[in-house]
Amino acid sequence: MTTSTTTLVDDYLACWNETDPSARRERMAALFTPDATYVDPLAVAEGLDQLDATIGAVQRQFAGMVFTPHGDADAHHDQVRFGWGLGPAGAEPLVLGFDVVVTAADGRIEQVLGFLDRVPS
Amino acid sequence: MTTSTTTLVDDYLACWNETDPSARRERMAALFTPDATYVDPLAVAEGLDQLDATIGAVQRQFAGMVFTPHGDADAHHDQVRFGWGLGPAGAEPLVLGFDVVVTAADGRIEQVLGFLDRVPS
Repeated sequence: MTTSTTTLVDDYLACWNETDPSARRERMAALFTPDATYVDPLAVAEGLDQLDATIGAVQRQFAGMVFTPHGDADAHHDQVRFGWGLGPAGAEPLVLGFDVVVTAADGRIEQVLGFLDRVPS
Repeated sequence: MTTSTTTLVDDYLACWNETDPSARRERMAALFTPDATYVDPLAVAEGLDQLDATIGAVQRQFAGMVFTPHGDADAHHDQVRFGWGLGPAGAEPLVLGFDVVVTAADGRIEQVLGFLDRVPS
């Protein structure tokens, strides 16, 4: 990887927290390959347009909440696993998730495999 | 998926436990696509020959030990996450690991992303 694991996770969550459309798109272009794939229990996205739309929809659903790292990230070869929370800033996360991301040779993310550990009842 | 999640995990661990070379190869051909990829912290394998060699090497290193499921599996779309243990039959596992597997359209595994949670000190 061309960036440290912590930086990668921080940059990834920064995309999910970036509500300005053009700023988010700029972050995404730097962080993901153009044909990156994303699969979580609620969404499947292929390529940056679909992933951008997915992030936008989640932001609308959880307006005002923020993504934060949860626990330690663990990386080897081209893959990283890490947990994240989504909730009001400074409060217990409403949602907890877990992602594995795979990076391409240039260090950008080409695949995200997402799971959910806690969802609002 | 054409098989249930539990069956997939059981079949996967059965490959890792199968020490007869031809029986293992038969199990692998049924469970994995021919070009399946496998990446864990200690090994990278591309295709069944390399994966078979990886499994054989682990079996030699941990002779007499068995892989067992650890915790619940969690599946959605084409991906499954699950934990496993490796140790003497009926005893506390010496090694704990965690894998995400991705299945192809025919239900066979095409990608394994492995991590280790506990390794012998």
